[in-house]
Amino acid sequence: MSKVIIVGYGPAGISAAIYLKRAGLDPLVIGKDYGTLSKYPKLLIENYYGFDKPISGNELIENGLKQAEYLGVDLVHDAVLSIDEDVAGGFVVVTQENTYKTEVVLLATGRDRVSVKIKNYQKFLGKGISLCAKCDGFFYRGKRLAVVGAGVFMKQELDYLNHLSDDIFVFTNGKPLEVSVPNKVVLDPIVSFNGVNKVESISTGENNYDIDGIFIAVGLPSTTNFASKLGIITEKNDVVVDSTYQTNIPGLFAAGDVIGGPLQIAKAVYDGMQAAAEIHKFLKKK
Amino acid sequence: MSKVIIVGYGPAGISAAIYLKRAGLDPLVIGKDYGTLSKYPKLLIENYYGFDKPISGNELIENGLKQAEYLGVDLVHDAVLSIDEDVAGGFVVVTQENTYKTEVVLLATGRDRVSVKIKNYQKFLGKGISLCAKCDGFFYRGKRLAVVGAGVFMKQELDYLNHLSDDIFVFTNGKPLEVSVPNKVVLDPIVSFNGVNKVESISTGENNYDIDGIFIAVGLPSTTNFASKLGIITEKNDVVVDSTYQTNIPGLFAAGDVIGGPLQIAKAVYDGMQAAAEIHKFLKKK
Repeated sequence: MSKVIIVGYGPAGISAAIYLKRAGLDPLVIGKDYGTLSKYPKLLIENYYGFDKPISGNELIENGLKQAEYLGVDLVHDAVLSIDEDVAGGFVVVTQENTYKTEVVLLATGRDRVSVKIKNYQKFLGKGISLCAKCDGFFYRGKRLAVVGAGVFMKQELDYLNHLSDDIFVFTNGKPLEVSVPNKVVLDPIVSFNGVNKVESISTGENNYDIDGIFIAVGLPSTTNFASKLGIITEKNDVVVDSTYQTNIPGLFAAGDVIGGPLQIAKAVYDGMQAAAEIHKFLKKK
Repeated sequence: MSKVIIVGYGPAGISAAIYLKRAGLDPLVIGKDYGTLSKYPKLLIENYYGFDKPISGNELIENGLKQAEYLGVDLVHDAVLSIDEDVAGGFVVVTQENTYKTEVVLLATGRDRVSVKIKNYQKFLGKGISLCAKCDGFFYRGKRLAVVGAGVFMKQELDYLNHLSDDIFVFTNGKPLEVSVPNKVVLDPIVSFNGVNKVESISTGENNYDIDGIFIAVGLPSTTNFASKLGIITEKNDVVVDSTYQTNIPGLFAAGDVIGGPLQIAKAVYDGMQAAAEIHKFLKKK
Protein backbone atom coordinates (compact mmCIF):
# COMPACT_ATOMS: atom_id res chain seq x y z
CA MET A 1 0.00 0.00 0.00
CA SER A 2 1.25 3.39 -1.03
CA LYS A 3 0.49 6.37 1.16
CA VAL A 4 0.01 8.58 -1.88
CA ILE A 5 -1.50 7.75 -5.24
CA ILE A 6 -1.07 10.29 -8.00
CA VAL A 7 -3.59 10.03 -10.82
CA GLY A 8 -2.09 11.37 -14.04
CA TYR A 9 1.51 11.45 -15.22
CA GLY A 10 1.76 14.75 -17.01
CA PRO A 11 3.88 17.66 -15.72
CA ALA A 12 1.90 18.21 -12.49
CA GLY A 13 1.73 14.54 -11.52
CA ILE A 14 5.36 13.76 -12.22
CA SER A 15 6.64 16.97 -10.62
CA ALA A 16 4.72 16.05 -7.47
CA ALA A 17 6.02 12.46 -7.65
CA ILE A 18 9.62 13.66 -7.89
CA TYR A 19 9.30 15.89 -4.86
CA LEU A 20 7.44 13.28 -2.81
CA LYS A 21 9.98 10.61 -3.67
CA ARG A 22 12.84 12.85 -2.67
CA ALA A 23 11.03 13.68 0.57
CA GLY A 24 11.15 9.99 1.47
CA LEU A 25 7.61 9.06 0.53
CA ASP A 26 6.90 6.46 -2.13
CA PRO A 27 4.09 7.70 -4.31
CA LEU A 28 2.45 5.44 -6.84
CA VAL A 29 1.71 7.19 -10.12
CA ILE A 30 -1.12 5.83 -12.27
CA GLY A 31 -1.54 7.22 -15.75
CA LYS A 32 -2.95 6.14 -19.03
CA ASP A 33 -2.66 8.73 -21.77
CA TYR A 34 -0.38 11.66 -22.45
CA GLY A 35 -3.12 14.23 -22.07
CA THR A 36 -3.37 17.66 -23.64
CA LEU A 37 0.31 17.86 -24.52
CA SER A 38 -0.01 14.91 -26.88
CA LYS A 39 -3.12 16.20 -28.62
CA TYR A 40 -1.16 18.35 -31.03
CA PRO A 41 1.85 16.27 -32.05
CA LYS A 42 3.15 18.96 -34.39
CA LEU A 43 2.98 21.69 -31.81
CA LEU A 44 6.38 22.42 -30.32
CA ILE A 45 6.80 23.82 -26.84
CA GLU A 46 8.94 26.93 -26.67
CA ASN A 47 7.84 28.62 -23.49
CA TYR A 48 8.79 26.10 -20.83
CA TYR A 49 12.17 27.08 -19.42
CA GLY A 50 15.27 24.99 -19.85
CA PHE A 51 15.25 23.58 -23.38
CA ASP A 52 17.65 25.02 -25.93
CA LYS A 53 15.45 23.70 -28.75
CA PRO A 54 11.65 23.50 -28.97
CA ILE A 55 10.36 20.14 -27.74
CA SER A 56 7.20 18.23 -28.63
CA GLY A 57 4.57 17.46 -26.02
CA ASN A 58 5.09 13.72 -26.37
CA GLU A 59 8.83 14.07 -25.94
CA LEU A 60 8.38 16.17 -22.80
CA ILE A 61 5.94 13.66 -21.28
CA GLU A 62 8.32 10.80 -22.08
CA ASN A 63 11.23 12.71 -20.57
CA GLY A 64 9.15 13.17 -17.45
CA LEU A 65 8.32 9.47 -17.22
CA LYS A 66 12.00 8.55 -17.63
CA GLN A 67 12.97 11.13 -15.05
CA ALA A 68 10.54 9.63 -12.54
CA GLU A 69 11.75 6.10 -13.30
CA TYR A 70 15.35 7.22 -12.88
CA LEU A 71 14.49 8.41 -9.38
CA GLY A 72 12.78 5.11 -8.58
CA VAL A 73 9.19 6.34 -8.67
CA ASP A 74 6.62 3.56 -9.12
CA LEU A 75 4.70 4.10 -12.34
CA VAL A 76 1.71 2.09 -13.46
CA HIS A 77 0.27 2.41 -16.95
CA ASP A 78 -3.37 1.76 -16.23
CA ALA A 79 -6.74 3.48 -16.41
CA VAL A 80 -8.33 4.69 -13.19
CA LEU A 81 -12.00 3.73 -13.24
CA SER A 82 -13.11 5.02 -9.87
CA ILE A 83 -11.94 6.75 -6.72
CA ASP A 84 -14.00 6.30 -3.57
CA GLU A 85 -13.64 7.28 0.05
CA ASP A 86 -12.99 4.21 2.17
CA VAL A 87 -15.15 3.77 5.27
CA ALA A 88 -11.97 2.86 7.16
CA GLY A 89 -10.40 6.19 6.11
CA GLY A 90 -8.40 7.04 3.03
CA PHE A 91 -9.40 6.08 -0.49
CA VAL A 92 -9.94 3.08 -2.71
CA VAL A 93 -8.69 3.54 -6.26
CA VAL A 94 -9.99 1.04 -8.80
CA THR A 95 -8.16 0.70 -12.09
CA GLN A 96 -8.74 -1.54 -15.07
CA GLU A 97 -6.19 -4.02 -13.68
CA ASN A 98 -6.16 -3.54 -9.93
CA THR A 99 -7.56 -2.09 -6.71
CA TYR A 100 -5.42 0.11 -4.45
CA LYS A 101 -5.84 1.53 -0.95
CA THR A 102 -4.19 4.82 -0.13
CA GLU A 103 -4.24 7.61 2.43
CA VAL A 104 -3.89 10.46 -0.04
CA VAL A 105 -4.93 10.93 -3.66
CA LEU A 106 -3.51 13.67 -5.86
CA LEU A 107 -5.63 14.36 -8.93
CA ALA A 108 -3.30 15.54 -11.68
CA THR A 109 -5.59 14.54 -14.48
CA GLY A 110 -5.23 17.64 -16.58
CA ARG A 111 -7.94 19.40 -18.43
CA ASP A 112 -11.00 17.45 -19.46
CA ARG A 113 -11.28 18.35 -23.08
CA VAL A 114 -13.36 15.32 -23.95
CA SER A 115 -16.91 16.52 -24.25
CA VAL A 116 -19.96 14.76 -25.56
CA LYS A 117 -20.90 16.44 -28.80
CA ILE A 118 -24.48 15.27 -29.14
CA LYS A 119 -27.37 17.64 -29.78
CA ASN A 120 -29.08 18.74 -26.53
CA TYR A 121 -26.43 17.13 -24.29
CA GLN A 122 -25.79 20.34 -22.38
CA LYS A 123 -29.50 21.18 -22.32
CA PHE A 124 -30.47 17.97 -20.51
CA LEU A 125 -27.38 17.51 -18.32
CA GLY A 126 -28.86 17.10 -14.85
CA LYS A 127 -32.31 16.78 -16.39
CA GLY A 128 -32.28 13.10 -17.21
CA ILE A 129 -28.62 12.95 -18.25
CA SER A 130 -26.19 11.90 -15.50
CA LEU A 131 -22.41 11.46 -15.32
CA CYS A 132 -22.42 9.07 -12.34
CA ALA A 133 -24.39 5.86 -11.84
CA LYS A 134 -23.64 5.64 -8.12
CA CYS A 135 -24.72 9.25 -7.60
CA ASP A 136 -27.99 9.24 -9.48
CA GLY A 137 -28.88 5.58 -10.24
CA PHE A 138 -31.21 5.30 -7.25
CA PHE A 139 -33.56 7.92 -8.71
CA TYR A 140 -34.00 5.80 -11.83
CA ARG A 141 -34.99 2.50 -10.17
CA GLY A 142 -37.10 0.34 -12.51
CA LYS A 143 -36.98 2.92 -15.29
CA ARG A 144 -35.96 2.52 -18.92
CA LEU A 145 -32.34 3.65 -19.10
CA ALA A 146 -29.46 4.13 -21.52
CA VAL A 147 -25.74 3.96 -20.83
CA VAL A 148 -23.63 5.70 -23.47
CA GLY A 149 -20.16 4.22 -23.94
CA ALA A 150 -18.30 1.27 -25.43
CA GLY A 151 -15.54 0.22 -23.02
CA VAL A 152 -14.63 -0.66 -19.44
CA PHE A 153 -16.03 2.51 -17.96
CA MET A 154 -19.42 1.92 -19.59
CA LYS A 155 -19.30 -1.67 -18.27
CA GLN A 156 -18.65 -0.47 -14.74
CA GLU A 157 -21.58 1.93 -14.78
CA LEU A 158 -23.81 -0.67 -16.44
CA ASP A 159 -22.99 -3.35 -13.85
CA TYR A 160 -24.14 -0.99 -11.14
CA LEU A 161 -27.32 0.06 -12.91
CA ASN A 162 -28.31 -3.50 -13.87
CA HIS A 163 -29.15 -4.01 -10.18
CA LEU A 164 -31.61 -1.14 -10.33
CA SER A 165 -33.42 -1.76 -13.59
CA ASP A 166 -33.88 -4.59 -16.06
CA ASP A 167 -34.57 -2.35 -19.02
CA ILE A 168 -31.24 -0.77 -19.96
CA PHE A 169 -29.83 -0.12 -23.45
CA VAL A 170 -26.17 0.37 -24.22
CA PHE A 171 -25.47 3.02 -26.88
CA THR A 172 -21.93 2.84 -28.26
CA ASN A 173 -22.56 5.98 -30.34
CA GLY A 174 -20.94 4.53 -33.46
CA LYS A 175 -17.95 2.98 -31.65
CA PRO A 176 -17.23 -0.76 -31.75
CA LEU A 177 -18.23 -2.47 -28.50
CA GLU A 178 -15.09 -3.33 -26.51
CA VAL A 179 -16.61 -5.39 -23.66
CA SER A 180 -19.28 -8.08 -23.30
CA VAL A 181 -22.59 -6.97 -21.83
CA PRO A 182 -25.82 -8.84 -21.12
CA ASN A 183 -27.88 -5.88 -22.39
CA LYS A 184 -29.38 -4.73 -25.66
CA VAL A 185 -26.74 -2.78 -27.61
CA VAL A 186 -27.27 0.00 -30.15
CA LEU A 187 -24.21 0.62 -32.32
CA ASP A 188 -25.66 3.45 -34.43
CA PRO A 189 -24.34 6.96 -33.79
CA ILE A 190 -26.65 9.12 -31.68
CA VAL A 191 -28.11 12.09 -33.53
CA SER A 192 -29.87 13.83 -30.65
CA PHE A 193 -31.27 13.65 -27.15
CA ASN A 194 -34.88 14.76 -27.18
CA GLY A 195 -37.45 15.97 -24.70
CA VAL A 196 -39.26 19.02 -23.39
CA ASN A 197 -38.36 19.76 -19.77
CA LYS A 198 -36.32 16.61 -19.35
CA VAL A 199 -34.85 14.00 -21.64
CA GLU A 200 -37.47 11.64 -23.10
CA SER A 201 -35.82 9.84 -26.00
CA ILE A 202 -32.65 9.18 -28.00
CA SER A 203 -32.62 9.44 -31.79
CA THR A 204 -30.19 7.64 -34.04
CA GLY A 205 -30.40 7.98 -37.80
CA GLU A 206 -32.41 4.74 -37.84
CA ASN A 207 -34.68 4.82 -34.79
CA ASN A 208 -36.10 6.70 -31.87
CA TYR A 209 -35.80 5.15 -28.38
CA ASP A 210 -37.99 6.24 -25.47
CA ILE A 211 -35.72 6.61 -22.45
CA ASP A 212 -36.21 7.93 -18.87
CA GLY A 213 -32.57 8.41 -17.97
CA ILE A 214 -29.18 8.47 -19.69
CA PHE A 215 -25.81 7.74 -18.09
CA ILE A 216 -22.75 8.99 -19.96
CA ALA A 217 -19.72 6.70 -19.62
CA VAL A 218 -17.72 7.45 -22.74
CA GLY A 219 -14.01 6.59 -22.90
CA LEU A 220 -12.39 6.64 -19.51
CA PRO A 221 -13.83 8.35 -16.46
CA SER A 222 -12.93 12.02 -16.56
CA THR A 223 -12.13 14.25 -13.64
CA THR A 224 -15.71 15.44 -13.82
CA ASN A 225 -16.83 11.84 -13.24
CA PHE A 226 -14.51 11.35 -10.26
CA ALA A 227 -15.51 14.71 -8.90
CA SER A 228 -19.25 14.23 -9.07
CA LYS A 229 -18.99 10.78 -7.53
CA LEU A 230 -16.80 11.94 -4.66
CA GLY A 231 -18.71 15.15 -4.12
CA ILE A 232 -15.73 17.36 -4.92
CA ILE A 233 -16.66 21.00 -5.34
CA THR A 234 -15.95 22.27 -8.85
CA GLU A 235 -16.35 25.67 -10.43
CA LYS A 236 -16.72 25.96 -14.21
CA ASN A 237 -15.17 22.51 -14.66
CA ASP A 238 -12.19 23.36 -12.41
CA VAL A 239 -11.68 21.37 -9.24
CA VAL A 240 -11.67 23.87 -6.38
CA VAL A 241 -8.72 23.61 -3.97
CA ASP A 242 -7.65 25.68 -0.98
CA SER A 243 -4.22 27.23 -0.49
CA THR A 244 -2.84 23.79 0.41
CA TYR A 245 -4.04 22.25 -2.88
CA GLN A 246 -6.63 20.26 -0.97
CA THR A 247 -10.19 19.82 -2.22
CA ASN A 248 -13.19 19.91 0.10
CA ILE A 249 -12.49 16.22 0.81
CA PRO A 250 -9.64 15.84 3.33
CA GLY A 251 -6.74 13.89 1.84
CA LEU A 252 -7.85 14.51 -1.72
CA PHE A 253 -5.50 16.96 -3.41
CA ALA A 254 -5.45 18.33 -6.95
CA ALA A 255 -2.79 20.12 -9.01
CA GLY A 256 -2.13 21.30 -12.55
CA ASP A 257 -4.64 22.16 -15.27
CA VAL A 258 -7.42 20.37 -13.41
CA ILE A 259 -7.56 23.20 -10.85
CA GLY A 260 -7.61 25.96 -13.49
CA GLY A 261 -5.39 29.02 -13.64
CA PRO A 262 -2.93 29.50 -16.50
CA LEU A 263 -2.89 26.25 -18.51
CA GLN A 264 0.88 26.31 -18.72
CA ILE A 265 3.52 23.66 -18.10
CA ALA A 266 5.44 26.00 -15.78
CA LYS A 267 2.34 26.38 -13.64
CA ALA A 268 1.56 22.63 -13.60
CA VAL A 269 5.14 21.83 -12.56
CA TYR A 270 5.02 24.46 -9.82
CA ASP A 271 1.64 23.13 -8.63
CA GLY A 272 3.09 19.62 -8.44
CA MET A 273 6.00 20.81 -6.32
CA GLN A 274 3.76 22.79 -3.98
CA ALA A 275 1.15 20.04 -3.68
CA ALA A 276 3.90 17.56 -2.79
CA ALA A 277 5.00 19.80 0.07
CA GLU A 278 1.43 20.10 1.32
CA ILE A 279 0.81 16.34 1.09
CA HIS A 280 3.98 15.80 3.06
CA LYS A 281 2.72 18.14 5.79
CA PHE A 282 -0.72 16.52 5.74
CA LEU A 283 0.70 13.02 6.28
CA LYS A 284 3.03 14.24 9.04
CA LYS A 285 0.11 15.68 11.00
CA LYS A 286 -1.83 12.41 10.91
CA MET B 1 14.87 51.90 -25.48
CA SER B 2 13.31 48.73 -24.18
CA LYS B 3 10.10 48.95 -22.21
CA VAL B 4 11.25 46.18 -19.90
CA ILE B 5 14.72 45.43 -18.58
CA ILE B 6 15.21 42.13 -16.83
CA VAL B 7 18.20 41.98 -14.51
CA GLY B 8 19.45 38.42 -14.21
CA TYR B 9 19.34 35.57 -16.70
CA GLY B 10 18.68 32.56 -14.51
CA PRO B 11 15.41 30.58 -14.62
CA ALA B 12 13.18 33.43 -13.38
CA GLY B 13 14.64 36.08 -15.68
CA ILE B 14 14.63 33.94 -18.82
CA SER B 15 11.19 32.49 -18.14
CA ALA B 16 9.84 36.04 -17.84
CA ALA B 17 11.72 37.06 -21.00
CA ILE B 18 10.22 34.17 -22.99
CA TYR B 19 6.68 35.05 -21.95
CA LEU B 20 7.15 38.78 -22.52
CA LYS B 21 8.68 38.20 -25.94
CA ARG B 22 5.81 35.94 -26.95
CA ALA B 23 3.36 38.56 -25.68
CA GLY B 24 4.81 41.00 -28.22
CA LEU B 25 7.04 42.99 -25.89
CA ASP B 26 10.79 43.15 -26.44
CA PRO B 27 12.48 42.77 -23.10
CA LEU B 28 16.19 43.36 -22.71
CA VAL B 29 17.87 40.85 -20.44
CA ILE B 30 21.07 41.88 -18.69
CA GLY B 31 23.03 39.24 -16.82
CA LYS B 32 26.54 38.61 -15.75
CA ASP B 33 27.05 35.39 -13.88
CA TYR B 34 25.23 32.07 -13.70
CA GLY B 35 24.19 32.55 -10.10
CA THR B 36 23.45 29.91 -7.50
CA LEU B 37 23.00 27.10 -10.03
CA SER B 38 26.62 27.41 -11.14
CA LYS B 39 28.06 27.48 -7.64
CA TYR B 40 28.13 23.70 -7.33
CA PRO B 41 29.29 22.43 -10.72
CA LYS B 42 29.17 18.80 -9.62
CA LEU B 43 25.63 19.03 -8.32
CA LEU B 44 23.12 17.61 -10.76
CA ILE B 45 19.53 18.78 -10.90
CA GLU B 46 17.00 15.97 -10.65
CA ASN B 47 13.88 17.69 -9.40
CA TYR B 48 13.06 20.09 -12.20
CA TYR B 49 10.48 18.47 -14.45
CA GLY B 50 11.18 17.50 -18.02
CA PHE B 51 14.71 16.08 -18.18
CA ASP B 52 15.17 12.36 -18.61
CA LYS B 53 18.69 12.61 -17.21
CA PRO B 54 20.01 14.80 -14.40
CA ILE B 55 21.38 18.07 -15.70
CA SER B 56 24.05 20.40 -14.29
CA GLY B 57 23.22 23.94 -13.27
CA ASN B 58 25.55 25.39 -15.87
CA GLU B 59 23.98 23.31 -18.60
CA LEU B 60 20.48 24.38 -17.60
CA ILE B 61 21.45 28.07 -17.56
CA GLU B 62 23.09 27.71 -20.98
CA ASN B 63 20.02 25.94 -22.34
CA GLY B 64 17.93 28.82 -21.07
CA LEU B 65 20.14 31.41 -22.74
CA LYS B 66 20.00 29.51 -26.05
CA GLN B 67 16.22 29.16 -25.71
CA ALA B 68 15.87 32.92 -25.25
CA GLU B 69 18.18 33.62 -28.19
CA TYR B 70 16.23 31.18 -30.35
CA LEU B 71 13.08 33.22 -29.64
CA GLY B 72 14.87 36.45 -30.51
CA VAL B 73 15.23 37.83 -26.98
CA ASP B 74 17.90 40.55 -26.62
CA LEU B 75 20.56 39.37 -24.18
CA VAL B 76 23.41 41.49 -22.89
CA HIS B 77 26.27 39.99 -20.91
CA ASP B 78 27.11 42.89 -18.67
CA ALA B 79 27.17 43.81 -14.99
CA VAL B 80 24.46 46.09 -13.66
CA LEU B 81 26.07 48.68 -11.41
CA SER B 82 23.05 50.73 -10.44
CA ILE B 83 19.32 51.09 -10.90
CA ASP B 84 17.74 54.48 -10.20
CA GLU B 85 14.32 55.98 -10.59
CA ASP B 86 14.33 58.54 -13.38
CA VAL B 87 12.83 61.96 -12.59
CA ALA B 88 11.05 61.75 -15.96
CA GLY B 89 9.46 58.42 -14.92
CA GLY B 90 10.75 54.90 -15.33
CA PHE B 91 14.27 53.84 -14.47
CA VAL B 92 17.88 54.35 -15.45
CA VAL B 93 19.95 51.19 -15.44
CA VAL B 94 23.71 51.71 -15.47
CA THR B 95 25.92 48.78 -16.45
CA GLN B 96 29.65 48.49 -16.75
CA GLU B 97 29.38 49.15 -20.51
CA ASN B 98 26.24 51.22 -20.99
CA THR B 99 23.29 53.23 -19.66
CA TYR B 100 19.69 52.24 -20.40
CA LYS B 101 16.30 53.89 -19.91
CA THR B 102 13.28 51.69 -19.32
CA GLU B 103 9.70 51.83 -18.06
CA VAL B 104 9.83 48.59 -16.11
CA VAL B 105 12.60 46.71 -14.32
CA LEU B 106 12.28 43.08 -13.30
CA LEU B 107 14.79 42.04 -10.65
CA ALA B 108 15.54 38.38 -11.19
CA THR B 109 18.89 38.50 -9.50
CA GLY B 110 18.60 35.35 -7.47
CA ARG B 111 19.69 34.81 -3.96
CA ASP B 112 22.48 36.95 -2.59
CA ARG B 113 24.71 34.37 -1.12
CA VAL B 114 27.75 36.62 -1.19
CA SER B 115 28.25 37.82 2.33
CA VAL B 116 31.10 39.70 3.87
CA LYS B 117 32.79 37.32 6.25
CA ILE B 118 34.70 39.76 8.38
CA LYS B 119 34.56 39.74 12.16
CA ASN B 120 31.92 42.16 13.50
CA TYR B 121 30.47 42.93 10.06
CA GLN B 122 26.94 42.05 11.12
CA LYS B 123 27.41 43.74 14.49
CA PHE B 124 28.22 47.14 12.95
CA LEU B 125 25.99 46.98 9.85
CA GLY B 126 24.01 50.23 10.08
CA LYS B 127 26.29 51.40 12.87
CA GLY B 128 29.10 52.83 10.80
CA ILE B 129 28.98 50.19 8.07
CA SER B 130 26.88 51.06 5.00
CA LEU B 131 25.99 49.27 1.77
CA CYS B 132 25.14 52.39 -0.23
CA ALA B 133 27.21 55.55 -0.73
CA LYS B 134 24.33 57.57 -2.18
CA CYS B 135 22.07 56.57 0.72
CA ASP B 136 24.41 57.27 3.63
CA GLY B 137 27.38 59.23 2.25
CA PHE B 138 25.93 62.57 3.31
CA PHE B 139 26.10 61.62 6.99
CA TYR B 140 29.83 61.03 6.69
CA ARG B 141 30.85 64.38 5.13
CA GLY B 142 34.46 65.26 5.94
CA LYS B 143 34.98 62.09 7.95
CA ARG B 144 37.69 59.46 7.61
CA LEU B 145 36.17 56.71 5.52
CA ALA B 146 36.94 53.29 4.04
CA VAL B 147 35.52 51.71 0.92
CA VAL B 148 35.91 47.92 0.86
CA GLY B 149 36.19 46.44 -2.64
CA ALA B 150 38.55 46.02 -5.57
CA GLY B 151 36.58 46.51 -8.81
CA VAL B 152 34.17 48.70 -10.74
CA PHE B 153 31.54 48.75 -8.04
CA MET B 154 34.05 49.97 -5.44
CA LYS B 155 35.19 52.64 -7.94
CA GLN B 156 31.62 53.83 -8.44
CA GLU B 157 31.02 54.20 -4.71
CA LEU B 158 34.42 55.79 -4.21
CA ASP B 159 33.85 58.40 -6.97
CA TYR B 160 30.70 59.46 -5.19
CA LEU B 161 32.28 59.61 -1.74
CA ASN B 162 35.41 61.47 -2.93
CA HIS B 163 33.15 64.52 -3.30
CA LEU B 164 32.20 64.32 0.35
CA SER B 165 35.53 63.61 2.03
CA ASP B 166 39.22 63.84 1.17
CA ASP B 167 40.29 61.19 3.63
CA ILE B 168 39.17 57.87 2.19
CA PHE B 169 41.03 54.56 2.14
CA VAL B 170 40.33 51.72 -0.24
CA PHE B 171 40.57 48.25 1.35
CA THR B 172 40.75 45.47 -1.25
CA ASN B 173 40.64 42.85 1.53
CA GLY B 174 43.41 40.76 0.02
CA LYS B 175 42.18 41.03 -3.57
CA PRO B 176 44.29 42.54 -6.38
CA LEU B 177 43.12 46.06 -7.24
CA GLU B 178 41.26 45.97 -10.60
CA VAL B 179 40.75 49.71 -11.19
CA SER B 180 42.81 52.88 -10.81
CA VAL B 181 41.90 55.09 -7.87
CA PRO B 182 43.38 58.39 -6.64
CA ASN B 183 43.14 57.19 -3.00
CA LYS B 184 45.31 55.36 -0.53
CA VAL B 185 44.92 51.60 -1.03
CA VAL B 186 45.33 48.84 1.56
CA LEU B 187 45.77 45.41 -0.03
CA ASP B 188 46.05 43.42 3.23
CA PRO B 189 43.14 41.21 4.19
CA ILE B 190 40.90 42.70 6.87
CA VAL B 191 40.93 40.79 10.14
CA SER B 192 38.16 42.66 11.97
CA PHE B 193 36.01 45.72 12.28
CA ASN B 194 36.34 47.17 15.77
CA GLY B 195 34.43 49.53 18.02
CA VAL B 196 32.12 49.76 21.00
CA ASN B 197 28.68 51.10 19.99
CA LYS B 198 29.69 51.88 16.42
CA VAL B 199 32.60 51.02 14.18
CA GLU B 200 35.81 52.86 15.09
CA SER B 201 38.61 51.06 13.30
CA ILE B 202 39.68 48.37 10.83
CA SER B 203 42.38 45.85 11.72
CA THR B 204 44.50 44.03 9.19
CA GLY B 205 47.16 41.59 10.25
CA GLU B 206 49.70 44.42 9.91
CA ASN B 207 47.96 47.55 11.13
CA ASN B 208 45.01 49.21 12.79
CA TYR B 209 43.23 52.05 10.93
CA ASP B 210 40.97 54.55 12.72
CA ILE B 211 37.84 54.93 10.57
CA ASP B 212 34.51 56.78 11.06
CA GLY B 213 32.55 55.02 8.33
CA ILE B 214 32.90 51.98 6.09
CA PHE B 215 31.20 51.45 2.71
CA ILE B 216 31.04 47.87 1.46
CA ALA B 217 31.33 47.57 -2.34
CA VAL B 218 32.70 44.08 -2.84
CA GLY B 219 32.33 42.32 -6.18
CA LEU B 220 29.27 43.51 -8.08
CA PRO B 221 26.33 45.32 -6.53
CA SER B 222 23.99 42.79 -4.96
CA THR B 223 20.24 42.95 -4.82
CA THR B 224 20.64 44.26 -1.30
CA ASN B 225 22.63 47.16 -2.73
CA PHE B 226 20.03 47.94 -5.41
CA ALA B 227 17.28 47.58 -2.88
CA SER B 228 18.71 49.89 -0.25
CA LYS B 229 19.52 52.54 -2.85
CA LEU B 230 16.05 52.44 -4.39
CA GLY B 231 14.26 52.19 -1.08
CA ILE B 232 12.75 48.79 -1.87
CA ILE B 233 11.18 47.14 1.14
CA THR B 234 12.92 43.89 2.06
CA GLU B 235 12.27 41.35 4.77
CA LYS B 236 15.06 39.07 5.96
CA ASN B 237 17.00 39.72 2.73
CA ASP B 238 13.98 38.94 0.53
CA VAL B 239 12.58 41.65 -1.69
CA VAL B 240 8.93 42.09 -0.72
CA VAL B 241 6.43 41.98 -3.61
CA ASP B 242 2.65 42.11 -3.74
CA SER B 243 0.43 39.59 -5.52
CA THR B 244 1.39 41.19 -8.85
CA TYR B 245 5.12 40.65 -8.24
CA GLN B 246 5.54 44.41 -7.84
CA THR B 247 7.73 45.94 -5.14
CA ASN B 248 6.72 49.06 -3.23
CA ILE B 249 8.16 51.05 -6.17
CA PRO B 250 5.69 51.15 -9.08
CA GLY B 251 7.16 49.57 -12.20
CA LEU B 252 9.82 47.70 -10.27
CA PHE B 253 9.02 43.99 -10.24
CA ALA B 254 10.89 41.05 -8.75
CA ALA B 255 10.69 37.29 -9.30
CA GLY B 256 12.52 34.10 -8.39
CA ASP B 257 14.78 33.42 -5.43
CA VAL B 258 15.17 37.15 -4.75
CA ILE B 259 11.59 37.29 -3.39
CA GLY B 260 12.00 34.24 -1.15
CA GLY B 261 9.73 31.20 -0.95
CA PRO B 262 10.97 27.77 -1.99
CA LEU B 263 14.39 28.23 -3.61
CA GLN B 264 13.50 25.88 -6.44
CA ILE B 265 13.84 26.13 -10.21
CA ALA B 266 10.17 25.20 -10.67
CA LYS B 267 9.17 28.13 -8.49
CA ALA B 268 11.53 30.60 -10.20
CA VAL B 269 10.23 29.57 -13.65
CA TYR B 270 6.63 29.94 -12.46
CA ASP B 271 7.42 33.34 -10.93
CA GLY B 272 8.93 34.48 -14.22
CA MET B 273 5.82 33.45 -16.13
CA GLN B 274 3.49 35.16 -13.68
CA ALA B 275 5.59 38.33 -13.40
CA ALA B 276 5.61 38.59 -17.20
CA ALA B 277 1.80 38.52 -17.25
CA GLU B 278 1.66 41.22 -14.55
CA ILE B 279 4.21 43.42 -16.34
CA HIS B 280 2.15 43.09 -19.50
CA LYS B 281 -0.96 44.26 -17.61
CA PHE B 282 1.00 47.09 -15.97
CA LEU B 283 2.23 48.45 -19.31
CA LYS B 284 -1.21 48.15 -20.88
CA LYS B 285 -2.74 50.29 -18.13
CA LYS B 286 -0.21 53.08 -18.62
